[in-house]
Amino acid sequence: MTRVNEMIELTFEGVEPAGSHVAVNVKAVFTKGDFSKEVLGFYAGNGTYKVRFLAEEAGRYTYQVSGLVSGQGTIDVEEADEKHHGIVRPDGTKLRHADGTYITTFGTTVYALAHQTDELTEETFKSLECGAFNKIRICLFPKHYAYNKNDHRYFPFYYDENGQNIEFTDNLGEKRSVKPIDTNHPCFEFWDEFEGKLNRLFDMGIQVDLILFHPYDRWGHSYMSQEANLTYLDFAIRRLAAFPNIWWSMANEYDLFFNWKIEQWHEVDEFIGKNDPYGHMLSNHNCFPLYDFERDAITHVSIQNRAMNRVKELQAKYNKPVCYDECAYEGNLKETWGSISAKEMVNRFWKVTVTGGFCTHGEVLLDDDIETSEQQDNAVLWWAKGGKLKGQSPERIKFLREVVESLPGPIEGDVVGLGRMLAMSDQEREMSLKYTPESMRGFIETIGRMDASEILYHIIPSFEYAGHCGENVFIFYLGTDCCARYMPQLPQGKTFTIEVVDAWNMTRSQTATGVKMGDEIRLPGHEYIAVIATAEN
Amino acid sequence: MTRVNEMIELTFEGVEPAGSHVAVNVKAVFTKGDFSKEVLGFYAGNGTYKVRFLAEEAGRYTYQVSGLVSGQGTIDVEEADEKHHGIVRPDGTKLRHADGTYITTFGTTVYALAHQTDELTEETFKSLECGAFNKIRICLFPKHYAYNKNDHRYFPFYYDENGQNIEFTDNLGEKRSVKPIDTNHPCFEFWDEFEGKLNRLFDMGIQVDLILFHPYDRWGHSYMSQEANLTYLDFAIRRLAAFPNIWWSMANEYDLFFNWKIEQWHEVDEFIGKNDPYGHMLSNHNCFPLYDFERDAITHVSIQNRAMNRVKELQAKYNKPVCYDECAYEGNLKETWGSISAKEMVNRFWKVTVTGGFCTHGEVLLDDDIETSEQQDNAVLWWAKGGKLKGQSPERIKFLREVVESLPGPIEGDVVGLGRMLAMSDQEREMSLKYTPESMRGFIETIGRMDASEILYHIIPSFEYAGHCGENVFIFYLGTDCCARYMPQLPQGKTFTIEVVDAWNMTRSQTATGVKMGDEIRLPGHEYIAVIATAEN
Repeated sequence: MTRVNEMIELTFEGVEPAGSHVAVNVKAVFTKGDFSKEVLGFYAGNGTYKVRFLAEEAGRYTYQVSGLVSGQGTIDVEEADEKHHGIVRPDGTKLRHADGTYITTFGTTVYALAHQTDELTEETFKSLECGAFNKIRICLFPKHYAYNKNDHRYFPFYYDENGQNIEFTDNLGEKRSVKPIDTNHPCFEFWDEFEGKLNRLFDMGIQVDLILFHPYDRWGHSYMSQEANLTYLDFAIRRLAAFPNIWWSMANEYDLFFNWKIEQWHEVDEFIGKNDPYGHMLSNHNCFPLYDFERDAITHVSIQNRAMNRVKELQAKYNKPVCYDECAYEGNLKETWGSISAKEMVNRFWKVTVTGGFCTHGEVLLDDDIETSEQQDNAVLWWAKGGKLKGQSPERIKFLREVVESLPGPIEGDVVGLGRMLAMSDQEREMSLKYTPESMRGFIETIGRMDASEILYHIIPSFEYAGHCGENVFIFYLGTDCCARYMPQLPQGKTFTIEVVDAWNMTRSQTATGVKMGDEIRLPGHEYIAVIATAEN
Repeated sequence: MTRVNEMIELTFEGVEPAGSHVAVNVKAVFTKGDFSKEVLGFYAGNGTYKVRFLAEEAGRYTYQVSGLVSGQGTIDVEEADEKHHGIVRPDGTKLRHADGTYITTFGTTVYALAHQTDELTEETFKSLECGAFNKIRICLFPKHYAYNKNDHRYFPFYYDENGQNIEFTDNLGEKRSVKPIDTNHPCFEFWDEFEGKLNRLFDMGIQVDLILFHPYDRWGHSYMSQEANLTYLDFAIRRLAAFPNIWWSMANEYDLFFNWKIEQWHEVDEFIGKNDPYGHMLSNHNCFPLYDFERDAITHVSIQNRAMNRVKELQAKYNKPVCYDECAYEGNLKETWGSISAKEMVNRFWKVTVTGGFCTHGEVLLDDDIETSEQQDNAVLWWAKGGKLKGQSPERIKFLREVVESLPGPIEGDVVGLGRMLAMSDQEREMSLKYTPESMRGFIETIGRMDASEILYHIIPSFEYAGHCGENVFIFYLGTDCCARYMPQLPQGKTFTIEVVDAWNMTRSQTATGVKMGDEIRLPGHEYIAVIATAEN
């Protein structure tokens, strides 16, 4: 039985293409009443061609396949089951599945998942059953970096053994000379195996933020010609676009491709935007300067940053969902990106989530008995290879996820407290001065005398994290503040029931009822406390 | 016996001045060989005039007093004892006593110390014996604010009962109508009592950062005419400038004087700069925009800020010592400025101190059994009233002080790691690109594409805190990073002994010897660790 939001695959026998195994002339049109969608098929090896299609509505579809192979027929697509809500797309600054269900993502990172042994991969999938995560960031190409230099039995594409060698210095400073990668000749074994993983993740309800390029490379995948890059993308889209759980992440740390011009990235986002028939999520992740998220094809903001107060700022700038896809990792490494505590990882998730953004986890806990740098490369760190989750943050992220999923809708971040005055534009300040009681005017004016840098020096460390769901639920997350008393900023004219949530100890309990604007409530007086205020009647 | 660095006081009988009790014509000249210093005397009440002088060198001084009272004589000043090192003044970005001894200050805050009961004041002095602090921020005028609305038996000056009432809205929003304060008529009982406290602090080796004005006021001290302000300063300087442990803090949160023009502050700093015969430390503390520390009379940077990475930035900008005089307080209040944990307070001290700055503590721990806002006003919070220190940070600050005082000299902050690249000016970046190996050029270039705001979004949360003492001792403070391994950035060609310091658990132990640049050392893998590397031989 075929259902809405599950991939449909049609298989046709043909002859092996003479030239490119990617740019094959196989086209399919799916129609149902007024609906019509054209998709490209792909060569799958062994004289087999495939066409994949994702029906987003129930009904009888007619298809017409033409080109190197041809065929036609009808498919009856039943209503979706309760589990599969369909492709995630932006709705303003929120994320919604095709069926309208909102999703708050809780990401994790296993960059080189695709390039590990079967045994380790099984362990990784077992770990992912913990329920903390509904999104994972993984790379398609293999990864060369400290703590992971794994080759795999398959590469996504073959080398062009007749090509001229490419010379480059890899990301770890070593000189390399390799044949050019021939993206017209995919290694079908790799793709089949890789898709097996995508399917398992799909079954587990996990979105895949698929990193298409990354600079941690000794093999030459980051030194391909732009033509080869686009051929690769053509193949990836033909094969993968009908997976409902795919997101396209153009790069990890796009700005560390020192050999790429920014125009190449623009061409990549335009190519995906134009060729992906489903409009999957598409973004580009930075190390330092942010990508230009205003670009048409870009669906959301995907950033690496450790200042956790930027959700509202970036939403306001781009009117797109904001994903903190890297905020450092729970770990004990010497590197600053890999040595935050579990508490701090959980703290960062709460800050991003209660302000209406989406956060991503990673874990790099190195065992004490590891001595040499070779042993370090062979160590199994979740963030690169997967394996067992050893950290203390995943179960707290799961708890946060449960809290969020218990709310009546998606969270809209609020800028409260001083942050409100600090974040005003000159124009807002001028407007605001007209309507502000005299007692507050002085504050607005003195803040207005600060330059942009001084404002950031205040906002970043003092930001107050808050949000609301609709008009009746308000959340305040106090981070490392140890307030024993608190005056939640509530709207006038309603009374509220107060729940106190301990983000670290994973408790949630009702502590007060009938609380009004201006009332002071009691809190435990230690770190990692959130307050949920729900309007009564 | 009179010693160097201890105040000398001469007393003369005369008649009560007819007009102002401040602008009295009493002048004294002290000479010793080529040295000559003129100071003004003051009226001390009851027909008594006083002249105070601080000898900064040993020897026989001749004095000549003239004006309303007169006299002459000689004073033999002996060498200082070991305890008294004299006035603190800036030396570049460092602080040194008059005798050349460097001082690293460890401040605390008891704003309204001058306005509490004798019993509570005794308790405060007892608490100050803990040894954590060698500087205290106190206000001269009484303070009106949540958690302290104390009147005192004395005000520094009398009201002019014949004057026209002054109308203002106080800092808590209440309308006030008071007689003008007559700064020509000091309340001598207040000043005598206040000086008793200064003397006790002097005996304890505690510098007094004396806050001359503050906006937390229902009595009118922040609504005096500029003429009255300068008369007050004239009196304060005549009386207090010969105290070796006085620093002038023009204001707490100068920018919250919504009724003052910036030119008034300029006039205040110029007045003090011109009239203080000893050149005591002088600065002005902000809530939001920083004061203009480039001004000639300003000796150091005094800031309120919660971004702890600014010592080097502000040193570079002003070439003056940098004091974080407010970085929020250890506490459990609902207010964000009063709810950081003891761990975070200690963390902030270490960050400021290892980068060559000077930090100030405060404590606002409210007991659980306090219910009403009246009870809150009557509560005894250290930061306002003194009393007992209840927090967990003071003993850790004392430990930090001991660590710092064990070092061979003052700490010079370093900008290490990525911070170095992030903080480059355009010009430095251009220079640096010329000499950078190719592998690093890409990093410098991509960072160079970030605007000032994006740079701050990276620097503030990722700053690496480090410093050195001379050429042989290097300190790295890892804050909340939980590194189990670490590669300290050491100079080439030397070997180092490594000590690991646990800032929270207050331990310090040698863990390795013979460590060279590029070596990886082991650390405990939890928060609040510092590494001290000392060159061998």
